[in-house]
Amino acid sequence: MKINGVEIEDTFAEAFNLYFARILITGITKRYAYEAAREATGYGTSLIGCTAEAGIEKYLSTNETFDGRHGYVIQIYTSKKNIEKELINRIGQCILTAPGTRVFNYLNSEEKVQAGYKLKYFGDGYEKEVEIFGRKCISIPIMFGEFIVEKEFGIKKGVAGGNFIIIARSQSSALLAGEVAVEAIKNVEGVITPFPSGLCASGSKVGSRYKFLKASTNEKYCPTLKDIIPDSKVKDANAAIEIVINGMDIESVKKAMKVGIIAATKVDGVIRISAGNYEGKLGNIKISLHELFE
Amino acid sequence: MKINGVEIEDTFAEAFNLYFARILITGITKRYAYEAAREATGYGTSLIGCTAEAGIEKYLSTNETFDGRHGYVIQIYTSKKNIEKELINRIGQCILTAPGTRVFNYLNSEEKVQAGYKLKYFGDGYEKEVEIFGRKCISIPIMFGEFIVEKEFGIKKGVAGGNFIIIARSQSSALLAGEVAVEAIKNVEGVITPFPSGLCASGSKVGSRYKFLKASTNEKYCPTLKDIIPDSKVKDANAAIEIVINGMDIESVKKAMKVGIIAATKVDGVIRISAGNYEGKLGNIKISLHELFE
Amino acid sequence: MKINGVEIEDTFAEAFNLYFARILITGITKRYAYEAAREATGYGTSLIGCTAEAGIEKYLSTNETFDGRHGYVIQIYTSKKNIEKELINRIGQCILTAPGTRVFNYLNSEEKVQAGYKLKYFGDGYEKEVEIFGRKCISIPIMFGEFIVEKEFGIKKGVAGGNFIIIARSQSSALLAGEVAVEAIKNVEGVITPFPSGLCASGSKVGSRYKFLKASTNEKYCPTLKDIIPDSKVKDANAAIEIVINGMDIESVKKAMKVGIIAATKVDGVIRISAGNYEGKLGNIKISLHELFE
Amino acid sequence: MKINGVEIEDTFAEAFNLYFARILITGITKRYAYEAAREATGYGTSLIGCTAEAGIEKYLSTNETFDGRHGYVIQIYTSKKNIEKELINRIGQCILTAPGTRVFNYLNSEEKVQAGYKLKYFGDGYEKEVEIFGRKCISIPIMFGEFIVEKEFGIKKGVAGGNFIIIARSQSSALLAGEVAVEAIKNVEGVITPFPSGLCASGSKVGSRYKFLKASTNEKYCPTLKDIIPDSKVKDANAAIEIVINGMDIESVKKAMKVGIIAATKVDGVIRISAGNYEGKLGNIKISLHELFE
Repeated sequence: MKINGVEIEDTFAEAFNLYFARILITGITKRYAYEAAREATGYGTSLIGCTAEAGIEKYLSTNETFDGRHGYVIQIYTSKKNIEKELINRIGQCILTAPGTRVFNYLNSEEKVQAGYKLKYFGDGYEKEVEIFGRKCISIPIMFGEFIVEKEFGIKKGVAGGNFIIIARSQSSALLAGEVAVEAIKNVEGVITPFPSGLCASGSKVGSRYKFLKASTNEKYCPTLKDIIPDSKVKDANAAIEIVINGMDIESVKKAMKVGIIAATKVDGVIRISAGNYEGKLGNIKISLHELFE
Repeated sequence: MKINGVEIEDTFAEAFNLYFARILITGITKRYAYEAAREATGYGTSLIGCTAEAGIEKYLSTNETFDGRHGYVIQIYTSKKNIEKELINRIGQCILTAPGTRVFNYLNSEEKVQAGYKLKYFGDGYEKEVEIFGRKCISIPIMFGEFIVEKEFGIKKGVAGGNFIIIARSQSSALLAGEVAVEAIKNVEGVITPFPSGLCASGSKVGSRYKFLKASTNEKYCPTLKDIIPDSKVKDANAAIEIVINGMDIESVKKAMKVGIIAATKVDGVIRISAGNYEGKLGNIKISLHELFE
Repeated sequence: MKINGVEIEDTFAEAFNLYFARILITGITKRYAYEAAREATGYGTSLIGCTAEAGIEKYLSTNETFDGRHGYVIQIYTSKKNIEKELINRIGQCILTAPGTRVFNYLNSEEKVQAGYKLKYFGDGYEKEVEIFGRKCISIPIMFGEFIVEKEFGIKKGVAGGNFIIIARSQSSALLAGEVAVEAIKNVEGVITPFPSGLCASGSKVGSRYKFLKASTNEKYCPTLKDIIPDSKVKDANAAIEIVINGMDIESVKKAMKVGIIAATKVDGVIRISAGNYEGKLGNIKISLHELFE
Repeated sequence: MKINGVEIEDTFAEAFNLYFARILITGITKRYAYEAAREATGYGTSLIGCTAEAGIEKYLSTNETFDGRHGYVIQIYTSKKNIEKELINRIGQCILTAPGTRVFNYLNSEEKVQAGYKLKYFGDGYEKEVEIFGRKCISIPIMFGEFIVEKEFGIKKGVAGGNFIIIARSQSSALLAGEVAVEAIKNVEGVITPFPSGLCASGSKVGSRYKFLKASTNEKYCPTLKDIIPDSKVKDANAAIEIVINGMDIESVKKAMKVGIIAATKVDGVIRISAGNYEGKLGNIKISLHELFE
């Protein structure tokens, strides 16, 4: 199959379920809301070495937020067991501490964690339960004024590890294709690309020759090894880059993969699109590249 | 004491020792180096709820880096016990994964951790030890090409928790004074301001009425409580903001506090400068505000 | 009248008609589209000393542009006599020269100028007329590839000089109120704020004691003169800032003034909202502040 | 000659003399100084259709400016006849109007224009001559407070039209090479790259088959024409991009060309470096590419 003249391999992305929260951060100005969102989603690329996979999903204008201020919607993925603590830490350390922010739940779900409620103890007895913008919140007095956080946050089973791999003639083409793919994915509701700039330059395989290591370099996709790896997938290439996508459900991840692949294939020097899969060792969700375009 | 007409309280900042690493990230373009630095220092405001306190110290131009590319120097503070693992995780998850980055040690110190050396296993046997730009490095083949990381990283005892508090007539003045103070501090060698935008809007005290909580809101500095807290320090104010500074040594922290305070006092609506201290419960380093100006 | 506790003066903004074009610039990436839009609208604050009043109206995502790329909509205001030449120069110098851009008309109007058609001569005979994305365009071969520009651009009589003045207790409050007002105005369809950061720090009056000068400082609003100007309008203030708004019609300008004023009044330290008017010397459109809130 | 494996053509850039001013803009925050600098240098790529060629040269930290604030140094090039008026307009419309800015001369030269002195009339009699930071300035009361502008600005004969052309296998490589070249040039004292993002995608030749046109597309460098132009210079390429450099003297322009070329040649997919020259029709300064590397 070819899209815009670029070969789409007949393969699939191997994804898996992970719990997530979806949070709205609002700020006095766009900039202060952004900085809080950025800090709260940092050091959050992959559960291999981070406590969560996190990213900014989208900006909401002053017409679109609950409180008429500028907002950023972020998503945080981790295990069900850890998600409440993760929210308490990321909100408490990175958003509560930013000047003028408020934090609201942005996910409808029966399942909830009490992250806001438990943050209230920071108020040391001066906190109050308030209803504001029609939402049940905690108000905590702080140096800058008052911090508002919703009591409960919805959590749900989402999809992690959606992905595709851009194989290119040059690093320049891989980089540009990666950038335009990530930019196109930003238009898709409900997804994040948790890696730096949305790009994973070091896509991995599950396992390693070293027993203690869960993940290691995916040598078949490494251009500098193409002459020594017999079944190298990049014999004709000089660079590859992986886009990893987490989303609220399979549909949003599929849509993101599709628009990202289309955008990438428009960049000159892109040779082929592949995807990362691990014989079921990583997850039980298979997303066929070809089926995206049916 | 007054600086630019603003009262400097006769008090001191209570700081403490913490181990740190100082790391140079270089990239193909300034933007890709920045995004890696940003991700690697995210979710890193305070050890109260983060695994490290981290921040970008400064930009290095193509004339100033080891490899003639654009660079950002970052600092990562945590306990001595945890620092090797913290570096492995933050480098491995946030910099190795970013396209085209290299990572070098940027701290001269006898004490070293083997963060680069241990990251090599990601190469799954294809990694190599190389000497490049006169430095002992590991080269790991990845999808985008080759990732270079220095074998050993210096670590040292640094200073965390340097701080001052800006007390202002309005939130507007507190915000602007905070911004110019943080910008001025960026000119000081060897320091970071780990909070979002460099500002801590929710400066805390040690302890709480709740036994399980190590830190809680510093009610004496909360403007919305000024009428009910008898010894409120902000009776005449409507906003306060704390600037927290970590640095390589006491001298750099002091210098940063001084230039930050001077910058803040030039902003109209700033009433007073104070500092956070906790009767020795937090740390054993006392930095007197008045002595900064002697 | 008070909004959010801030006095709205019973006065009006004096605006006037000016011709304008509305142009869509698309780019390979968001960044390259933005840089072209920025350059093309630079040096375009006021016809007093610039050849046009220009600004970026809004960003269009890849779902919203004619060609599925990232876009910025800009507006350029000048006299009817000069507008064709102004478009030829700003497009030819600032957008044609940027890598990978395309330029489309984004204004429905019977009246048109042949800006694209006249730019074609740059092609030196190698240019072609093409129909692309359903639009009549010129394709000009350039070093980077091919430059696409629509043949005709709609022009129309718009409104320039919509405005309001924020009067504040401190420069900090004036700045922050200005920033949030401009950010709120960005959500309004059809308008631009042509001054740097959207803010005019030196709002002027028509005329001057010097015969050769069309406009001069509006001394009644200058805080440093409040003690020597008997009818100073800022006796109780320390800073004022004017937001100037140009728009496609009176309705869009009114809407922008309203949302901007509401946003500004939420910032602490803002004392009063006024507006610039000049006894009919500047224009014949009067926009009453009070009527905005009826 | 080859640099980093990339052919450097044995040709030369044809440059010419143009008068310029070098101006320091300072601001309350880095952001406000930048926005003023950006507006003041906008719509300033080439004298073919702009009134000046202008750009930001560099940022100065709070340690480096006359007034201890954040600064940007800009350069403005135009004819000797027009330069005073150009400065009055760009400063008066784009910097005076920005909140909290000051403007200083940043060029030592015997020759001076009275741009600041003539801007004083905006003060309508309330302006004052003041000596501040050891410099002779005008203070003009404005809404935001007080605008400070130096009385006299040095002007000098500089060099315009320094250039080189990057010829690449793909648009991706041309773009990335252009970006890293421009970033490298930012480290060179005394130069600007006046085009959008520093890149000229539509490098031109002098003259045209149309009598009324001074400049037209340089068809020998247009990849889409390579099959119909017998002496095409890009037979083996798919994209080219020109970097145009203006500088204070030939040495700075040469240095910028050299570091820019070195940076560009490190990007994969770059085939060749050429330069624009026009048989002496444009200027009398010839800068040989090969001599840069002697």
